[in-house]
Amino acid sequence: MTPDKIKVYSPATVANMVCGFDVLGFALDGPYDELTMSMNKSGAVNIRNLDNFNLPLKAEDNVIGGALLALMAALDDNTGFEIDSRKTIKPGSGIGSSAASAAGAVMGANCLLGNRFSKAELVDFAMYGEKVASGARHADNIAPAIYGGITLIRSSNPLDIVSIPFPPLYVTVLHPLIEVKTSNAREILKKEILLKDAAMQWGNVAGLVAGLMKGDFELIRRSLVDVIVEPVRKILIPGFDAVKSACLEAGALGGGISGSGPSIFMLSETLETANEVAKAIHSCYGKIGIEYDVHVSNINPDGVKIILDPKD
Amino acid sequence: MTPDKIKVYSPATVANMVCGFDVLGFALDGPYDELTMSMNKSGAVNIRNLDNFNLPLKAEDNVIGGALLALMAALDDNTGFEIDSRKTIKPGSGIGSSAASAAGAVMGANCLLGNRFSKAELVDFAMYGEKVASGARHADNIAPAIYGGITLIRSSNPLDIVSIPFPPLYVTVLHPLIEVKTSNAREILKKEILLKDAAMQWGNVAGLVAGLMKGDFELIRRSLVDVIVEPVRKILIPGFDAVKSACLEAGALGGGISGSGPSIFMLSETLETANEVAKAIHSCYGKIGIEYDVHVSNINPDGVKIILDPKD
Repeated sequence: MTPDKIKVYSPATVANMVCGFDVLGFALDGPYDELTMSMNKSGAVNIRNLDNFNLPLKAEDNVIGGALLALMAALDDNTGFEIDSRKTIKPGSGIGSSAASAAGAVMGANCLLGNRFSKAELVDFAMYGEKVASGARHADNIAPAIYGGITLIRSSNPLDIVSIPFPPLYVTVLHPLIEVKTSNAREILKKEILLKDAAMQWGNVAGLVAGLMKGDFELIRRSLVDVIVEPVRKILIPGFDAVKSACLEAGALGGGISGSGPSIFMLSETLETANEVAKAIHSCYGKIGIEYDVHVSNINPDGVKIILDPKD
Repeated sequence: MTPDKIKVYSPATVANMVCGFDVLGFALDGPYDELTMSMNKSGAVNIRNLDNFNLPLKAEDNVIGGALLALMAALDDNTGFEIDSRKTIKPGSGIGSSAASAAGAVMGANCLLGNRFSKAELVDFAMYGEKVASGARHADNIAPAIYGGITLIRSSNPLDIVSIPFPPLYVTVLHPLIEVKTSNAREILKKEILLKDAAMQWGNVAGLVAGLMKGDFELIRRSLVDVIVEPVRKILIPGFDAVKSACLEAGALGGGISGSGPSIFMLSETLETANEVAKAIHSCYGKIGIEYDVHVSNINPDGVKIILDPKD
């Protein structure tokens, strides 16, 4: 029996995990978006927004719609979907708001369909949602949202997603309420980098993966270094150096820019430290004069969660 | 009680493990160099060569001597060493001939001294031996010789060596008897590389470490790709593409240039496949008209081995 109606909790995600630019990302427990979904037989995607973000309702122009239309093309029948979307992940925050919509929608659709598709296929459909959002079919946030935990995109073409085992880790996210356009964040990166810097980066990537898999927090700490992207992109985020220093002093293992920003994330070994890091952020960022949000979460091992036949 | 005399077996090593340029290397079981060592109280390093390589005997000009002089400077007393050196790892082969001399010498000395130094300190001393050989204090081959198994040099400065757990793996090494000067192999590398290629490389490095630690041979296979160094350096090794293709067809997981060449190594999941790969090398390389050696070995988890108070 497939459910008639489901509720989908689709989490925020962090891409570009420090040294793992373009390859390593992870899922958070919160914030998350809520989708209530059911199927129709009219072949239409009908979206209702239960939030104040005024996202487009036309399926082709909507991230949820783009992802579901790709899935429906694979079905090639008259299946359509009714979706109530209540986003709490602010668009443009750099913690995978569009990925949460796209990943939640295809995971929900797959559940309503009795799990016809593999996770790899669902990532592929959801990437069409990312294309609506940013013009690029990338899996940086989609992969951790769908697989949960920490994911490695070993290769984008063909897509090769690997789950990386990890010890319990806690995340403090600072979201400065400013806009950093992904296109600008891309443009300021140098197209060419020094081979010696690249080798330093892949030493750290290897150290990070080994540290995560061994549960060696000191190795994780030493490996959370980005010599390529952070030095360039941090100028787009006011107060970056000051707030990062404050977080490290408060005991964070390390961290950096989430996705292409403006959010900053910090990893900690315990929830207590992650809360101390949040306090340090308030002390430091409170003085900068920019509105901001702070979230504390664990790394979410499951990704998107689905409730069958919800009461409300 | 410390031994009066020891015999040291110091193995060949492979640096620049495909995508892990400058960071990943491993130890072989063979070939290996043999050192017979004892201490003196004259503060001298007396080296006797029991092979035909005619390496310099003056301590300052000899790899063994350079490494031991660095260790003796840390002791700061009248300790010296008597060494009989029988090398079977041909100098210039690209499988860590100088590192075997340097690592073997300091590991042996440390044993004679009752293990006064840590492995990290021994790596540091042995790097002075590498300086005698190539002018550069690098740990690429020293680290796996001393730690055994597969090692990651996460950082060179400060030196941070991490052992990477791995499943049983077998190695086939082809040593074409030609000279590739390390300086030439360095010079032809581009100093700048594309960021997109670098990100591809660190995706593969992350995949390789994850594959090794999970014992996932298919992931190891997919990750053994080098888009940066191999495409440039392979032109220094006649028949590289042909012999690599033949090895992959024979069932090798993957492989590439060992160190800066001319040796080529291939990894296999079983000894049987590693022997098949050796056969494929003979079929292919026999036609090229260059003299060559082939070695089959497992990855040696222990590195340098020491026999106390040997009879001969």
